[in-house]
Amino acid sequence: MSEILVVGSLAYDSVQTPAGKVDRALGGSANYFSLAASLFAKVRVVGVVGEDYEQKDFDLLKNRNVDTAGMTVQKGKTFHWSGYYEGDMNEAVTKATDLNVFEHFDPQLPEHYKDSKFVFLANISPDLQLKVLQQVQKPLFVGMDTMNFWISSKVDDLKKVLSKVDVVLINEHEAMMLTGAANAIEAAPKVCELGPKALVIKRGEYGFVMYTKDEGYFILPAYPIQKVTDPTGAGDTFAGGFFGHLASLGRVPEVSDLKMACMRGTILASFTIQDFSVNALAKTTLSELDLRLEKYLQVIRI
Amino acid sequence: MSEILVVGSLAYDSVQTPAGKVDRALGGSANYFSLAASLFAKVRVVGVVGEDYEQKDFDLLKNRNVDTAGMTVQKGKTFHWSGYYEGDMNEAVTKATDLNVFEHFDPQLPEHYKDSKFVFLANISPDLQLKVLQQVQKPLFVGMDTMNFWISSKVDDLKKVLSKVDVVLINEHEAMMLTGAANAIEAAPKVCELGPKALVIKRGEYGFVMYTKDEGYFILPAYPIQKVTDPTGAGDTFAGGFFGHLASLGRVPEVSDLKMACMRGTILASFTIQDFSVNALAKTTLSELDLRLEKYLQVIRI
Repeated sequence: MSEILVVGSLAYDSVQTPAGKVDRALGGSANYFSLAASLFAKVRVVGVVGEDYEQKDFDLLKNRNVDTAGMTVQKGKTFHWSGYYEGDMNEAVTKATDLNVFEHFDPQLPEHYKDSKFVFLANISPDLQLKVLQQVQKPLFVGMDTMNFWISSKVDDLKKVLSKVDVVLINEHEAMMLTGAANAIEAAPKVCELGPKALVIKRGEYGFVMYTKDEGYFILPAYPIQKVTDPTGAGDTFAGGFFGHLASLGRVPEVSDLKMACMRGTILASFTIQDFSVNALAKTTLSELDLRLEKYLQVIRI
Repeated sequence: MSEILVVGSLAYDSVQTPAGKVDRALGGSANYFSLAASLFAKVRVVGVVGEDYEQKDFDLLKNRNVDTAGMTVQKGKTFHWSGYYEGDMNEAVTKATDLNVFEHFDPQLPEHYKDSKFVFLANISPDLQLKVLQQVQKPLFVGMDTMNFWISSKVDDLKKVLSKVDVVLINEHEAMMLTGAANAIEAAPKVCELGPKALVIKRGEYGFVMYTKDEGYFILPAYPIQKVTDPTGAGDTFAGGFFGHLASLGRVPEVSDLKMACMRGTILASFTIQDFSVNALAKTTLSELDLRLEKYLQVIRI
């Protein structure tokens, strides 16, 4: 087993969905990722929080054996996102993004993080993604996420990051925006032309499209969930399950490893969306995941 | 092998997509269905056309060994639909629907149609669907489609049809509208509570959700197509491939038969969308379908 380094946001989210709402609940890509990945492997977090960040939220990660040495507390408030989902809940509408201490985030890796073999650069500014990657001595496998904001505002930096990573995990709109393609299928090989050997396009309730330079498309649906409470964090949970599985193997991933990683990612995300914030994810055990994986294999069995 | 009876529209469509446009090109659910199903089984069509319906469009079906005895020519013009698709092309926008001779369609089955074992009631008014079904002596397996217009305007008639069929093939919005569910997964068992043993929700580029009372969910993606030219007719092609496969087996379908029928349906639809009108579908051979099915099995192979 290898350690995973993740850099991303640590946040409080105020979210409204047709199922209800929460105010200033724990969120942020690095939290979802870490809770998911720590089911399989040791995780090291890099991020910044404000003085309002609660001890119980540190403890949540620590109790999962997540290394929080790279989480720094700065004067000011924690990053706060507020938004809502309507109808089929496939897209969040942002009401407010208060960057707070995240605005001047300058990621510095603790010395003992620098030998990390698996690295995930969650959705932060591409120049910060690069800065983190440069501090890791000899990574075995690097992944990244990004968002529409960076695609439109920092595409040159973004392309530098893309040229240095092994896998990209983004959603459909991001993939289309990045490549000018009209759909995820057309976008997939074009993203790989920018550098990465593999791409995973997250399609929410429709599952995922993986594309690898070696074997082409691998496409499967999501695990069927009848009552979706809050889709926030599903993509970061996917990435956490994906990387957690790969790190648990501790080797340069083969395509078959990436396939199982996608399935574990999508299954784990199906737990996250069943409650607000990290509530469902934080309670999910590896045996519950395995049970749902068995059911999933029935659903897709021809 | 058993014969399939299909009732539905025979139309000329004027369609615009990001890939181009066609004016008064052959369309209609019964045409797409028949061209698809006739790859596997003998098809009998019931429908109405106007005096402007071209001989070559009759011949297209006849050359596929489709029985057109139930196609009547009436004074007036053929049903004409005009619409366009934008962006991801997941939803058509209707510009005009000229029912023409279709408005007073009164389906009468030729005597030799009445022993049909497989029956597909494509999207027409539910009272006409019932009228057709009543004329079939002893069907083995009956399927239906419908649309938002009938769900909102004739839901009582529609529920009567639903209580008499074995399988429903509809799209996601229709399934949600019919049941009040928030997503396809929640909608699926609720549709089956209305009567049918099986439901197939067509998800366009995302594939399909099948739900059976016996075995629950069966969910798979669509065959990956990079360049979509025109999605018109994809759902009817799916239904045609689905029924064609089942009729070629000639027995009461088991769940495993329905699964293969879904896969053949989605593969065949992937040809339809690669050109306007029935152009690609009409040229597709069974061996091309089988070849693409093999590739599909690679794409979903875990």
